[in-house]
Amino acid sequence: MGKLNNEKREQYRNDLIGLLKDCKYAHFRREFLQLHPIDQAEFYGTLEESFRQKLYKAIHSNEMAAIFQALDFEEQKHLAVIELDQQYAANMLNHLYADDAADFLSQLEAHEAEAILRTMKAEEANHVIDLMSYPPKTAGSIMTKEFVSITSNQTVQQVIEQLRLEAPDAETIYYLYVVNDVKQLVGVLSLRDLLTASPNEVIEHLMSSRVISIESTSDQEEVAKLIKKYDLLAAPIISPNRTLLGIVTVDDVMDVIEDETTEDLGEFSASRGATDVNLSAFQAAKLRSPWIIMLMFFGLITAGIIDQYEETLEQIVLLAAFIPLLMDSAGNTGTQSLAVVVRGLALGTIEKKGLLRTLRREFSTGLMIGLLCALVLVLIIPLIYGNVILAIIVGVSVFCSLSIATVIGAIVPLIINKLKLDPAIASGPFITTINDILGLLIYFSIATSLLQYL
Amino acid sequence: MGKLNNEKREQYRNDLIGLLKDCKYAHFRREFLQLHPIDQAEFYGTLEESFRQKLYKAIHSNEMAAIFQALDFEEQKHLAVIELDQQYAANMLNHLYADDAADFLSQLEAHEAEAILRTMKAEEANHVIDLMSYPPKTAGSIMTKEFVSITSNQTVQQVIEQLRLEAPDAETIYYLYVVNDVKQLVGVLSLRDLLTASPNEVIEHLMSSRVISIESTSDQEEVAKLIKKYDLLAAPIISPNRTLLGIVTVDDVMDVIEDETTEDLGEFSASRGATDVNLSAFQAAKLRSPWIIMLMFFGLITAGIIDQYEETLEQIVLLAAFIPLLMDSAGNTGTQSLAVVVRGLALGTIEKKGLLRTLRREFSTGLMIGLLCALVLVLIIPLIYGNVILAIIVGVSVFCSLSIATVIGAIVPLIINKLKLDPAIASGPFITTINDILGLLIYFSIATSLLQYL
Repeated sequence: MGKLNNEKREQYRNDLIGLLKDCKYAHFRREFLQLHPIDQAEFYGTLEESFRQKLYKAIHSNEMAAIFQALDFEEQKHLAVIELDQQYAANMLNHLYADDAADFLSQLEAHEAEAILRTMKAEEANHVIDLMSYPPKTAGSIMTKEFVSITSNQTVQQVIEQLRLEAPDAETIYYLYVVNDVKQLVGVLSLRDLLTASPNEVIEHLMSSRVISIESTSDQEEVAKLIKKYDLLAAPIISPNRTLLGIVTVDDVMDVIEDETTEDLGEFSASRGATDVNLSAFQAAKLRSPWIIMLMFFGLITAGIIDQYEETLEQIVLLAAFIPLLMDSAGNTGTQSLAVVVRGLALGTIEKKGLLRTLRREFSTGLMIGLLCALVLVLIIPLIYGNVILAIIVGVSVFCSLSIATVIGAIVPLIINKLKLDPAIASGPFITTINDILGLLIYFSIATSLLQYL
Repeated sequence: MGKLNNEKREQYRNDLIGLLKDCKYAHFRREFLQLHPIDQAEFYGTLEESFRQKLYKAIHSNEMAAIFQALDFEEQKHLAVIELDQQYAANMLNHLYADDAADFLSQLEAHEAEAILRTMKAEEANHVIDLMSYPPKTAGSIMTKEFVSITSNQTVQQVIEQLRLEAPDAETIYYLYVVNDVKQLVGVLSLRDLLTASPNEVIEHLMSSRVISIESTSDQEEVAKLIKKYDLLAAPIISPNRTLLGIVTVDDVMDVIEDETTEDLGEFSASRGATDVNLSAFQAAKLRSPWIIMLMFFGLITAGIIDQYEETLEQIVLLAAFIPLLMDSAGNTGTQSLAVVVRGLALGTIEKKGLLRTLRREFSTGLMIGLLCALVLVLIIPLIYGNVILAIIVGVSVFCSLSIATVIGAIVPLIINKLKLDPAIASGPFITTINDILGLLIYFSIATSLLQYL
């Protein structure tokens, strides 16, 4: 990385374009293929069509596959469906890893996907069709079929020979999965252990038979957790009868983690599925407004509550001035507890601590924060508004509502989690609204009861 | 995973405990070492001290290192500082990967760390001290020194021989880093390419000289981005003069991503550094209350604003009832925009789209959501409160403040990002407070100007 590096890259880019302009295909090819596929794809993305067409002349379909794999869907679609001739496109897709091909095709219209599948090699096409049959977000839907499987009676030397042949096509060769004659997963061996063993050693004596695996129907998050927990580079995906179906590699899992993070943030801000910058303003509004409107109706409830206390307000309008302060404080404290619990559930630290201890801790935290805030207000409000009773009303209300707010913020996601739902659904705004309502009830009941002293 | 698997595990656990009870150390050792270190650590965590002491008799210090590495800091400290005799502890730490040892020691009191370092092997200790010298959250602070480096004039056969020797101690052998005689990084070769090459081939002809590397002083997030972008299993860390210092492996990067997620959620809910469930209630309150109190002072500002409009309120108290609705709607809409932008910046999609287009999109989204909400209110409020003017006041205020809220929610993180700070610092509560103040000003100015019609 670094600045100089960027200049170099710019220079290199211009050289490559020059070679294309002069149709020096062989030379371009030699230089271009030295780039990392990701950088090849970045370069490709900056070209105009005329240059892209020249690039297709210089680059073989199997090399194009590496670039294709790094493009986003729109670019992929334009390339495979519109720009490339069908044969070149088919060859390219034959060279893709089955999981990448399935990702791409499952986003196309059914008829487009079928048209492409028909032109692909039967074997590749079947792999892809098979992967496309798994429901989205399952382990099966993100697995790949390009893995190395060996048998327990092979010797180290034999496996190394096999690797020489299979390595170029396998997505990873660093874990070797051992299967029996009915293709059931019976063991695993790391390439590291293979290399340090003597050539004539038999796999059966090297492999670990307590192999960590996961079923194709499990949630993709399960795979991510597993790979993260055991620091794996890949995890084998099996059928209920332990047949080895495919593998999920760590790089795919990183994308899963990224997705889940996006989801959580979306839930947390009540904008589920709408955090994508590429959406049009209208699409975004369509996805986001339902949340806002739903929450606005809660707002109408709070309005109703305040309306109930109109008499109290009429006698001392100043009470209204502290509504925002009270609501925000309770809302913020509740959101903090929410964040703590959502995080704790995601990392599994709460199971370790125990639910009750977590709740008790949040409550005590709320008491302390509430007490502190109350003290500050009881000291400051009289100075500004010269009204001690008002200060007491606000202070006591803040104390009570903050203590409750932490419990609400902690208990709601815990309940949702017990219901086997994603705790992040208990997004900030909902917690906040619940706390608003409770806070206002507390505030106005205290105020009403102390009215005669005001 | 799966249920049966858990039962099996439970059974296995009881067998192991039985063996310890009967002091059958050899048998226990044989069975126990078949477990994955992570599971060994889980088992260890469930033992009482008397059993733990027996386990230390059965397990060698180098095997204990694998367990130690999987414990959390408190458990590690208890084990290494209190429970183990110093020699055993020192041997164990000698067998840890330098980065794990550095992680642990840097969390200890200085004098405890020094005491342990003195008992360690000089070479190991120096590795660890060196790693501890890098500022936290830099690439250097998360790198490890156990990597395989080769020279460009070696043959494939020679490297394979070297791997047989070094593999057991290296954190990864799947990338081989090529250095020149002054230890500068000149190339990289994957074990995959090594195995598929002919034994007499010279490394120079196989290695890629355009190796992706990162400087030790860069932010750890940079390493994560790099490894994620290029789907790497490890990245080499270099000094300004390209000396190879160490490597960061993909499993360490997953922890970094996890940390950053926690951080973002913390910022987002104004509980930075306090989302850890293991904190005591008092610690949590100490970390969280400053945010709440700071935000409470903003609340006093809003109180002041409302106080300014006391006359208006006195004439129509009902206005107070819609303060929460107005504030929450603006707050929620702003938080949505914040989530979109924070996410877009994290994924780099916003650079792609361009700042202005993002802002324009958020603004149009705000206009649409605002208009929709305004219409709903103008229809509903007269039905409930039989007051059309009030409905218009609230409706127009909501429309204006929501349109502004999206822009605030989007522009604040963008500005913070331009200032090279973490955009997530613009946490929800702050955006909400800004929007509260603007919303209330809009609301009451409109209300005051329309007062005569009420």
